[in-house]
Amino acid sequence: MSLVVTGTVGIDTIVTPKSHAEGVLGGSCAYFAAAASFFGGVRMVAAVGEDFPEAHRKTLLSFKGIDSAGLETRRGGKTFSWGGKYLPGMNSRESMFTELGVVGEKPPEVPAAYRDSKFVFLANMPPAVQGAMLDQFPSRKLAVADTMDLWIANANTDLRALLRRVDGLVLNYDEAEQLTEKANVVSAARHILDMGPRFVVVKKGEHGCILVHRDGIAALPAYPSETVVDPTGAGDTFAGGMMGSIASIPAGGNGGNDPGSFDSVRKALGYGTVIASFTIESFSLGRLQQISRTDVDRRYAEFSSMTRIG
Amino acid sequence: MSLVVTGTVGIDTIVTPKSHAEGVLGGSCAYFAAAASFFGGVRMVAAVGEDFPEAHRKTLLSFKGIDSAGLETRRGGKTFSWGGKYLPGMNSRESMFTELGVVGEKPPEVPAAYRDSKFVFLANMPPAVQGAMLDQFPSRKLAVADTMDLWIANANTDLRALLRRVDGLVLNYDEAEQLTEKANVVSAARHILDMGPRFVVVKKGEHGCILVHRDGIAALPAYPSETVVDPTGAGDTFAGGMMGSIASIPAGGNGGNDPGSFDSVRKALGYGTVIASFTIESFSLGRLQQISRTDVDRRYAEFSSMTRIG
Repeated sequence: MSLVVTGTVGIDTIVTPKSHAEGVLGGSCAYFAAAASFFGGVRMVAAVGEDFPEAHRKTLLSFKGIDSAGLETRRGGKTFSWGGKYLPGMNSRESMFTELGVVGEKPPEVPAAYRDSKFVFLANMPPAVQGAMLDQFPSRKLAVADTMDLWIANANTDLRALLRRVDGLVLNYDEAEQLTEKANVVSAARHILDMGPRFVVVKKGEHGCILVHRDGIAALPAYPSETVVDPTGAGDTFAGGMMGSIASIPAGGNGGNDPGSFDSVRKALGYGTVIASFTIESFSLGRLQQISRTDVDRRYAEFSSMTRIG
Repeated sequence: MSLVVTGTVGIDTIVTPKSHAEGVLGGSCAYFAAAASFFGGVRMVAAVGEDFPEAHRKTLLSFKGIDSAGLETRRGGKTFSWGGKYLPGMNSRESMFTELGVVGEKPPEVPAAYRDSKFVFLANMPPAVQGAMLDQFPSRKLAVADTMDLWIANANTDLRALLRRVDGLVLNYDEAEQLTEKANVVSAARHILDMGPRFVVVKKGEHGCILVHRDGIAALPAYPSETVVDPTGAGDTFAGGMMGSIASIPAGGNGGNDPGSFDSVRKALGYGTVIASFTIESFSLGRLQQISRTDVDRRYAEFSSMTRIG
């Protein structure tokens, strides 16, 4: 497969009600790539500053599927840095600080070797930047974007232009409502389909996700976790597991090999859910570094059984 | 089967952001019985006043599984009456008024013919009353109770005494946290198992439910409804569908016929979810009056497919 992700690689400081972690590896692109790497190769497109710790680079490379040729280290630049504090219950958080660093400068370079990427994930960025990134993958078979409240409010036109060009959109519950002004999640997602994508995945955090696809609807709970150390990266690793699963469907053959089909995406949501459930068991990529594909498949089977009623 | 439910039959006035209904049939026992009637017979134990409208009695009897011999009409009494107003989004509501009427007096009489009931559902009432009701079903094979924040706060000792005597507990997310002082739903439910029940079903409204059973965990989303007219009764019909399904498992035979088994309850949650999804499509029992067991089974199959990933 040739899956590429564009987004941020950053340095996070996280405070939870019970613990904290300072200066750990973070960013949508890092989380996504680690998650996707359980399914095959994944190419990263992101920029970091000269201050990016060698230890974090090693962590990324400890995931053997990750291709970091597109991780640009910008001379004199500063790595994106974010601090977040979770409120009791860990269902909401507030930013303590955001230092954009190189993320506030020009977008990262896409290596020429990445132009043949078939599967593209545009992690949350200004939609105009996401669109410019998309232009650089002319061989793409399936592109999915993430977005956030800020762009829905401040870059709505750009976002709508992007939506006409992607196959799928991943966004949070409240963002789906904000984008469509519809209070019902299914109605909101259907409305987004009218804007262009073939499918919409609405993430509800600890309450799971809903897929509204032109060919059907699926709904999944989150994996019922008892150990929640840090929810950071749950959404990005959900997307990484999902895209990794979608991209790993064998190409060619006859029939049934549409990677964006309802069945393909539905199955992929299960993998996304499972990978996210591991992510939140530690700070940063700690837990994902400890597990293997076998662990993922074992929990997938368990989760599949937990949600099966018929 | 011989399923009995004890609870309230009342007259509701409901205001939603888009509509309203005045003086409609409501109450936990009415909702539960209507839902359970799709699976077989269900015996009602509740009291109403002399003012209980004949039309409401007819509505109850339009569900052919309902046995209303235990619906006591109390001379000179007033029927329980409740008014509720849903806030925008319909995820929360406030009471406009509550007139206990006969519900504030002595509990209803249990007909002698009901003493052989095998399956007992104790809808939300003071736990001491629930306990006294339980005493009247000496042949019970499986008893499940509902409860609420008021009793957790004000009748905690009675509630704990009840929990030692029931097989299952059904309660809301926030109530599970309140009862156990644990912020994680799975941890909270496990803690409740230590208080006595074999299984706990945590209801999360539009976010589905989680079953924590001594023999396993299951998690289900809600049915992804687009038409939500009135959420009132969703929880009671969820319980009714669940208990109806559990009680309809054929008795006797060898092995695998434990109605409280993990598999039995898990499957039952699916039926509860589906019945609740019909309930909210109208005020009161309007939608349930229109549908047949075939509609229930059809949506069950659809829901089963929506949640299946493996």
